[in-house]
Amino acid sequence: MDVQALINNISQRMPEQRFKHVLRVTETAVKLAEKHRISTKDAETASLFHDIAKFMDKEKLRTVIVNEHLDITLLSFHHELWHGPVGAIIAQKEFDIENEDVLNAIRFHTTGRAGMSKLEKLIYVSDMIEPGRNFPGVEQLRAKSLDNLDQTMKACIYHSVNFLLSKKVPVYPDSIHCYNEHFRN
Amino acid sequence: MDVQALINNISQRMPEQRFKHVLRVTETAVKLAEKHRISTKDAETASLFHDIAKFMDKEKLRTVIVNEHLDITLLSFHHELWHGPVGAIIAQKEFDIENEDVLNAIRFHTTGRAGMSKLEKLIYVSDMIEPGRNFPGVEQLRAKSLDNLDQTMKACIYHSVNFLLSKKVPVYPDSIHCYNEHFRN
Repeated sequence: MDVQALINNISQRMPEQRFKHVLRVTETAVKLAEKHRISTKDAETASLFHDIAKFMDKEKLRTVIVNEHLDITLLSFHHELWHGPVGAIIAQKEFDIENEDVLNAIRFHTTGRAGMSKLEKLIYVSDMIEPGRNFPGVEQLRAKSLDNLDQTMKACIYHSVNFLLSKKVPVYPDSIHCYNEHFRN
Repeated sequence: MDVQALINNISQRMPEQRFKHVLRVTETAVKLAEKHRISTKDAETASLFHDIAKFMDKEKLRTVIVNEHLDITLLSFHHELWHGPVGAIIAQKEFDIENEDVLNAIRFHTTGRAGMSKLEKLIYVSDMIEPGRNFPGVEQLRAKSLDNLDQTMKACIYHSVNFLLSKKVPVYPDSIHCYNEHFRN
């Protein structure tokens, strides 16, 4: 499937507003990939796919998690976390994406994890700082992202975990493993 | 070993100030145990032992963790966390404490964990709210502890995890599992 066909396919799986977000993440990721010498092709593919499962029916998401033997504990966390791992399954099974790094970037874009690759960090960061995002500190993150991807990831995972704490909601263990890795002395 | 002999033994393993803390934790725990119908004997034993390894040499702590096959990932977290698991080993091997619930209360008094028993919560909470502790909110915790042990544990683990985040230091996974269990909807 060529890129335009993929874009058309993805656009039909989500509301227009969300699709525009996907395009902004893709633009951000490709720009940062050039800057940090990461494959722009992989950045584009992972970005386009990252939210492919976001508007799937909740019960369907649950079914995929069970049938594909994804981490079953996901089901006891907020369903907002489910679309990353399920999106990777869809990219793999429906679109024949085989690049494990691309699949992991889709899989972990919402939670992070310990031992993220450069591409995984790129997608996590791009999702958080794309031009449509607006929260205190986002401008500093955008500036930092041009300079140091790992330090930006560190700031992003801190922001995410801190946000969850402030909302008094559970933190998926992969996110804490990611935080711990970055804040280890 | 009778209680007085145990108290004498423990007092020799730590500075006087810390020993006074141990006695205050014990007093707090026994009082709360009566209130919440937990064995006061177990509360006393676990409290007296909880900091027994706190002033052990760091290298000795490390050796016990390795030789006793305790969770080796502890070594990549702050050494302040090590004395709980090591203390449980000492209670078991040097003092023949066999009650697994008492040993777990010693073991997890610094980190918490998912699935804590009432005794484990009692010791965790008593350690945090004993009369010598002084931090914003401690009075509310003391009041709550008389009424609802589980809600106090919830507030205590929130306080602990939030404190670690504010210091930008790692959070041991058991603490997040404990937090998640209490903040699951």
